[in-house]
Amino acid sequence: MIYAAVLGYGTVGSGVVEAIHTNKEKLKKAAGDEITVRYILDLRDFEGDPFESLVVHDFSVIENDPEVSIVVETMGGIHPAYEFTMAALKKGKSVCTSNKALVADCGYELMQTAKANNCSYFFEASCGGGIPVIRALTTSLAGEEILEITGILNGTTNYILTRMADEGSAFSEVLADAQALGYAEKDPTADVEGHDACRKIAILISLALGKRVDFRDIYTEGISRITPEDITTAKAFGGRIRLLAGAKVTDHGLEAMVAPYMVGKDSPLYGVNDVFNAVFVRGNILGDSMFYGRGAGKLPTASAVVGDVLECAKTLGKHASFGWDDEKPEMTAKDGIVNRFLVRIPDAYAARAAEVFPGIVFADSGIFEQCAFITEEMTEKDFEQAFASLGPNASCIRVK
Amino acid sequence: MIYAAVLGYGTVGSGVVEAIHTNKEKLKKAAGDEITVRYILDLRDFEGDPFESLVVHDFSVIENDPEVSIVVETMGGIHPAYEFTMAALKKGKSVCTSNKALVADCGYELMQTAKANNCSYFFEASCGGGIPVIRALTTSLAGEEILEITGILNGTTNYILTRMADEGSAFSEVLADAQALGYAEKDPTADVEGHDACRKIAILISLALGKRVDFRDIYTEGISRITPEDITTAKAFGGRIRLLAGAKVTDHGLEAMVAPYMVGKDSPLYGVNDVFNAVFVRGNILGDSMFYGRGAGKLPTASAVVGDVLECAKTLGKHASFGWDDEKPEMTAKDGIVNRFLVRIPDAYAARAAEVFPGIVFADSGIFEQCAFITEEMTEKDFEQAFASLGPNASCIRVK
Repeated sequence: MIYAAVLGYGTVGSGVVEAIHTNKEKLKKAAGDEITVRYILDLRDFEGDPFESLVVHDFSVIENDPEVSIVVETMGGIHPAYEFTMAALKKGKSVCTSNKALVADCGYELMQTAKANNCSYFFEASCGGGIPVIRALTTSLAGEEILEITGILNGTTNYILTRMADEGSAFSEVLADAQALGYAEKDPTADVEGHDACRKIAILISLALGKRVDFRDIYTEGISRITPEDITTAKAFGGRIRLLAGAKVTDHGLEAMVAPYMVGKDSPLYGVNDVFNAVFVRGNILGDSMFYGRGAGKLPTASAVVGDVLECAKTLGKHASFGWDDEKPEMTAKDGIVNRFLVRIPDAYAARAAEVFPGIVFADSGIFEQCAFITEEMTEKDFEQAFASLGPNASCIRVK
Repeated sequence: MIYAAVLGYGTVGSGVVEAIHTNKEKLKKAAGDEITVRYILDLRDFEGDPFESLVVHDFSVIENDPEVSIVVETMGGIHPAYEFTMAALKKGKSVCTSNKALVADCGYELMQTAKANNCSYFFEASCGGGIPVIRALTTSLAGEEILEITGILNGTTNYILTRMADEGSAFSEVLADAQALGYAEKDPTADVEGHDACRKIAILISLALGKRVDFRDIYTEGISRITPEDITTAKAFGGRIRLLAGAKVTDHGLEAMVAPYMVGKDSPLYGVNDVFNAVFVRGNILGDSMFYGRGAGKLPTASAVVGDVLECAKTLGKHASFGWDDEKPEMTAKDGIVNRFLVRIPDAYAARAAEVFPGIVFADSGIFEQCAFITEEMTEKDFEQAFASLGPNASCIRVK
């Protein structure tokens, strides 16, 4: 029998307990031994819950039970998740987490601690919910030189953008409705301003490069300024607006950015709607691939955690070596990052635009008395300088 | 140093040698030791080839070199691939293959032999080229009850169907052109009649269920009878025609089938064009997910083989336990499989159709003097009986 403890009995934690219970037989076959949850740590009691009897309020019960070999951390936030994770790893207990904030902030240190104590720190559920992209990057694709990772990594923003496009509604309206429906949090900042996606792409590209990409070094823009007119213009160009979190290896360093982009019909990311997430990966041998699935939600996220629990169970007493070094990769500053841009301007500015963006072709923007065009690839800095001369009513969005 | 031998220096084999050479440093880091190709087995010489000096013509050289611990089998076909694989495994050498015919036919026996000799038999490259779906099914998703796998698993047919839709051309025309371009083989039967996709779905669903699904038990239909009119009608319904290889767990057994289907815009499989492949996986906890990438070609397939080589290198002297038992799952006979159908008939048969398919709604078929409708879900048998009464010019395609 292999004993696990779950820290935090919220949405994901309860999903993990349920999933381990539901798929007990399948897990036993895959792990070669039965996996059982012995403790659930939470401040609350859960009267009437089928797993009520497992609830404890004191972490030291778990820490000091030598039979608990796997700890599932689904508390979120940095403290006390960090302290509990550290304590568990130091006791040689492997930890599986869905906590992207903790992984992005302290992942290197926690993986080093796991290594020193012959156990593992797994975090498949921290990026892209149920999508098993971390295991793919660290096993099947571990021999690839990864050239690019671009993801739709936040379900809330993708849901909002999908509904804005379907209904022609304003951002604030759809956000309010998404909050009422539970698809967006009361304080939606981390999602809508791109901070959540930023942490996730930092984790994915760190794994791919084996170097520590600090999420604070990634330029991040959210979707709160996207208007129905932007969406109309993207549609007029056959595209959709998506919040992309991308990182690309170039000759002049790693270009990483989180921002809304127009995604064209030819991209595999075009078909990713609603709360779905997807991660596009380009490898030097593999070429283009994409992983698609539910990026959030109780059971999909639990599925990823349980995949990690299974991996822990199969490698008890050993350290699963993957992750990143302390070294930072060379990164291109925001000004030097190359993008294409979809620009919409009042017709009156067309002559000026043709001057500052030579060679552009104007097209219907879908908006009355405004025209639009897509620039060539250019640096953010060059674009900003040229764009600044197009008057106060010009708008722009990057193009993937 | 870890030594490998590559059997068959054709497209995939040469891609593997090239990939191992190109990504030497990355592989060394991931494996913890350098991986080198010591032998290439082929009947031919390769004068002037950079790896010419590695070529041998006698398998026993490889078999009897105790330092070779990994054998890559990229010969294709059953003989002598089977004999060479057996011999290698019996010497405790792990084998990685791209040979779906051999895996579908003899996979169980070969995995048992690997187990008995503390080595492994890996075959990621046998299904979906570069898409790492086999490792996902056998690691991250090994704790899931898999409810459905549906794939676009053949690049040649997907290329032909994409071009037929883009150009309005006939099957035979596009096929001839695809052959001239090297996208289809001289004898295209295995691809266009669905036999290739059938073997791949048999492998995937066997892995997912842990039971031996014989590809001979899967009803298989190819794309050679698809007409430009069928594609026009699918378009009129907002869909695309794709060759799907699917298997679904139901209360009355496993429903497996390979056939052209109309795929609607809402399906993640809709956006899979040209030579790309994709595998849709539904798990009981995970929900819906999809893996997308290049399904064939030298380097993408080599990427999958190299992922397996890396796994071998990391588990030398151990058996990686996954695969399927000898037990067969209960399978639904073709007559009992449930599908929806898109039917096109001459207008003159509309009254008859309304009689045999109560409740259908007619729509524009896109073809002069013909109408079309989509049936409810019904068994193949019931459909065939009703459809038979719609005259000699009725046509139909299944709907996903």
